[in-house]
Amino acid sequence: MTNWKLILAYDGTPFCGWQVQPGLPTVQGLLADAIHRTVGERVLPQGSGRTDTGVHALGQVASLSLIAPIPPANLRRALNRCLPPSVRILSAELVPPDFHARHSAIRKTYEYRLFPTRTPALETCLDSICPPILAPYVWPCPWPLDLDALNQAAQHVLGTHDFTTFAAADPDLTTRTGPAPAHSPIRTITRSQWHAHGNLLIYRVTATGFLHHMVRNLVGTFVQCGAHRLSPDTIPSLLAARNRAAAGPTAPPTGLFLVSVEYAPTDNPQPATCNCL
Amino acid sequence: MTNWKLILAYDGTPFCGWQVQPGLPTVQGLLADAIHRTVGERVLPQGSGRTDTGVHALGQVASLSLIAPIPPANLRRALNRCLPPSVRILSAELVPPDFHARHSAIRKTYEYRLFPTRTPALETCLDSICPPILAPYVWPCPWPLDLDALNQAAQHVLGTHDFTTFAAADPDLTTRTGPAPAHSPIRTITRSQWHAHGNLLIYRVTATGFLHHMVRNLVGTFVQCGAHRLSPDTIPSLLAARNRAAAGPTAPPTGLFLVSVEYAPTDNPQPATCNCL
Repeated sequence: MTNWKLILAYDGTPFCGWQVQPGLPTVQGLLADAIHRTVGERVLPQGSGRTDTGVHALGQVASLSLIAPIPPANLRRALNRCLPPSVRILSAELVPPDFHARHSAIRKTYEYRLFPTRTPALETCLDSICPPILAPYVWPCPWPLDLDALNQAAQHVLGTHDFTTFAAADPDLTTRTGPAPAHSPIRTITRSQWHAHGNLLIYRVTATGFLHHMVRNLVGTFVQCGAHRLSPDTIPSLLAARNRAAAGPTAPPTGLFLVSVEYAPTDNPQPATCNCL
Repeated sequence: MTNWKLILAYDGTPFCGWQVQPGLPTVQGLLADAIHRTVGERVLPQGSGRTDTGVHALGQVASLSLIAPIPPANLRRALNRCLPPSVRILSAELVPPDFHARHSAIRKTYEYRLFPTRTPALETCLDSICPPILAPYVWPCPWPLDLDALNQAAQHVLGTHDFTTFAAADPDLTTRTGPAPAHSPIRTITRSQWHAHGNLLIYRVTATGFLHHMVRNLVGTFVQCGAHRLSPDTIPSLLAARNRAAAGPTAPPTGLFLVSVEYAPTDNPQPATCNCL
């Protein structure tokens, strides 16, 4: 048996999320089919976490074990030949047998891309139009937003907190990395920051793991602060409430990207392999 | 009655092209529905030309006549409220009664975006991967391409020619602008040029009109030249053959954008109107 780590990017638009569902197009299902057609083995690749319908990935990680002794250099290209252009394997490498895309993860980074269609200075007349080819990859947000207020709000979630307020009601869908106990709503956020990039406002957040809908619920609440409908200083009391009803609405999935998943350096590194053939 | 000129952008991915078809999602059908819901009138907006399934528009033009005296400043915003983010009205203005989006057009510009996944220098190992979120808007082309050869080929179609070789077999689907006689395969190309933009190779072409599939068939043939499978100097003989079989394959629709449509300055200009409310 060989254990594999795949890094993959996908456009979430045509998929009903990551997780395999009978009769529905999912990334996990498509990847399992591609592995079957390429290698002849029926395996279900394990993702670092589930992404919802419409959520994109720049660096999702999946692990799987194969019996066939595939030359490492061939797997990436062979899978990409079987997959549609909406899913691309960026790298495929052999990893130690105990590597698991979800259990071995120690940190994940998400990005949320927001296109404000009004700016505070131009509120009355010159609304800007979100280009249609950008729309599947942003939230075309109809309120003028104050970047400073967004960042003041975002700073309040740094550190270790109970994020129940920002989690969807369904705890079974909770995702986590590393050693956190199952169903614990405690997570540690090490980065939480908004920045402007061209016409976009982008939120980057890194944590030891995320509850279901956590990034979208944080963004939906920060946007209330950015629109001056909620004071950034109320965020600590929202966290303390441990009540989903205290937070803002869930931001749409289209703006959300799983950027990267980090793992601890292994004590038993595999020899470097060429990932390009 | 008031006559209107709309400029609109759309993402062609979710649509079965521009032209209304019963039971299928089309841009013309969606726009007609939005007009009905907004203004209460059943009209079919006329486009400057049809775009195929998967083809995008940055500046499609549509014309329509309305009975209701809508304040010009309101129409754009009202339509955008009814339309999905994949279709945006960029401007709406009153025009003289004889303006027609197709018949009055004198020139159109298309752009074709190509993402080469191999470069000549890196052919053996480092193929580059087309990002999944870019894939619906480019042709992820699997051959190394020579920009100089692409441009040598592109120069040969400048001027007035019979473009039968580069037209789809169905003459009924021919689109034209201005006074060209119906079904004539003669068109005049005034710009035909490739340039590199980041990882993309982009072809821009301006002409008095285009036959059905003409841009995609030109690109499919130029790519044969760019891949050194066909000499650029054979293009004149392909044009002279007046035979579709002489040209290369049709490039996929995903890379094609209708950029803009030009009209002659009118002798009877309408007063300038604010398009922003």
